[in-house]
Amino acid sequence: MLTIEKYQEKFIAFLETYSTVKEPRNLYEPIEYILGLGGKRLRPVLTLMTAEIFNCDYKEALNAALSIEVFHNFSLVHDDIMDDAPLRRGEKTVHEKWDINRGILSGDAMLIMAYQLFENYEADVFQDLAKLFSKTALEVCEGQQYDVDFETRNDVTIPEYLKMIEYKTAVLVGAAMNMGAIIAKAPKEDQHSIYEFGKNLGIAFQLQDDYLDAFGDPKTFGKQVGGDIIENKKTYLYLKALEFSKELDKTKLQDLFSTNPEDPTHKIDLAKQIFISSGSAEATKKAIKEYTDRAFSVLEFLDVEEDEKELLKTFGGSLINRKV
Amino acid sequence: MLTIEKYQEKFIAFLETYSTVKEPRNLYEPIEYILGLGGKRLRPVLTLMTAEIFNCDYKEALNAALSIEVFHNFSLVHDDIMDDAPLRRGEKTVHEKWDINRGILSGDAMLIMAYQLFENYEADVFQDLAKLFSKTALEVCEGQQYDVDFETRNDVTIPEYLKMIEYKTAVLVGAAMNMGAIIAKAPKEDQHSIYEFGKNLGIAFQLQDDYLDAFGDPKTFGKQVGGDIIENKKTYLYLKALEFSKELDKTKLQDLFSTNPEDPTHKIDLAKQIFISSGSAEATKKAIKEYTDRAFSVLEFLDVEEDEKELLKTFGGSLINRKV
Repeated sequence: MLTIEKYQEKFIAFLETYSTVKEPRNLYEPIEYILGLGGKRLRPVLTLMTAEIFNCDYKEALNAALSIEVFHNFSLVHDDIMDDAPLRRGEKTVHEKWDINRGILSGDAMLIMAYQLFENYEADVFQDLAKLFSKTALEVCEGQQYDVDFETRNDVTIPEYLKMIEYKTAVLVGAAMNMGAIIAKAPKEDQHSIYEFGKNLGIAFQLQDDYLDAFGDPKTFGKQVGGDIIENKKTYLYLKALEFSKELDKTKLQDLFSTNPEDPTHKIDLAKQIFISSGSAEATKKAIKEYTDRAFSVLEFLDVEEDEKELLKTFGGSLINRKV
Repeated sequence: MLTIEKYQEKFIAFLETYSTVKEPRNLYEPIEYILGLGGKRLRPVLTLMTAEIFNCDYKEALNAALSIEVFHNFSLVHDDIMDDAPLRRGEKTVHEKWDINRGILSGDAMLIMAYQLFENYEADVFQDLAKLFSKTALEVCEGQQYDVDFETRNDVTIPEYLKMIEYKTAVLVGAAMNMGAIIAKAPKEDQHSIYEFGKNLGIAFQLQDDYLDAFGDPKTFGKQVGGDIIENKKTYLYLKALEFSKELDKTKLQDLFSTNPEDPTHKIDLAKQIFISSGSAEATKKAIKEYTDRAFSVLEFLDVEEDEKELLKTFGGSLINRKV
């Protein structure tokens, strides 16, 4: 086993061999651009790590790891168009740097290229990878649609919200690890367990993201603190606060989340106060712990060495505490 | 072997079993809409027909045929956004009926669903189908990008144009037939031959489309006659006319194709005159015949019954004469 940083290095070196000069340039240029923007490459690292946990050289998992990363970036390009987002990792989004058409078409090409990366595996493994990939990719689309739908709905329930983040974010983390296990030819039960580990960790990760958006340290949190509040996003914090509030406070919170003040400072402070006083902030922390525990408890069933389980837990813990 | 009309019927019946009620509705509704808009279903019919030519029950090819049709409709939905097209088969395009975001996301889902339809085949066949599909789908994206690029280029050559229509249109016809042959477990050489047959026929079909746009009978041609001329599209007719014209006529034609008159009647007449007088109209008819002949000549190498070759020729001929 290597360290996380080493896997990142190995992955990035492999990614660099992938970016060849292909025609037409107008199609492939945006693809090279978005793949080169960086990021922590957590998903592909999880694929490599999982392959090694199941006693397979990480090198064999590089193509699948790259497929996961290419797909993830495809979804960023298309989501950024849908969200009209100007920036991605501090740089211009693809549709801002070029135009919407280039974003649509280069995204389409990336989705296809993600499938092509499985062609490096024998037929049985290829089919397992592609089936898992299709199921996951379709869930990511469904999660994105739910997210869009929720913007204009005022009756979103907590279970609906959890399903949305599971589909939009968590299943890809589970699939990234599952792919490592498929390539290592791990038993089906172990494949299932590691998928559940990744998925539950992914949900915890997203809930943590919701929490940090309001209560994170501006120095270490990558995004603008209070961004979700400014955008009136119905996060777990918001939905839990609604659930816990009496009718009057409920209306107050709903009213607050329909305003767009020029200076959001007061709105952010007020929302955070309600999140705390309603008990939502505590409930969110509790939910993060529950999903993390659920992820860790799946490891009990896993037929791998104890020290490798510890490694997964350390990695999982660091994800939640955002040290990676 | 059944008749074309019977294959169409069988395919449409299968398509209707596919449209199940899935959630979220906002994602799947546009997919059911576009798949239900009709069209001649030529590509899936070719898949079914080819399977039977190679002695395999068409029923086994239904999933692959549907995959081809779902992919074709995915490309229509995304292309219509890029071309800002309001109508498709006389009805509103997806992004017009809903919005661009619904068009992007439901298109993405269709691309994934096209791959999922291969899951009904065993691993070896699955891999062959998915590999051919990915290669073809990426070429379709590249063809679309070339088409977009050509709009703003004044130095497009005939070979470049032929490559564009090959990628954007013809390879999918070849792939549709190749898939039928894969499912029938036809020898690799026969798979290659039938792909080449379909591809060359696809090029002839597109050149015929260019020709009919200017010289078609308004009563039988489905689209507005002269539409390409109105939109200043650099079709084969236009590019050949440029090639054949002397410097002065060349400039005249280029100038004509940079105007957008309110009443295009005179522009259309003038363009058609130049297409005829320059020899471009004749050259286009010749090219159509050459690609059709090339398609037919590939059949010589094919190890199937003579009457089935005749059937392919009849079908090919009817495509070019647009009776199907």
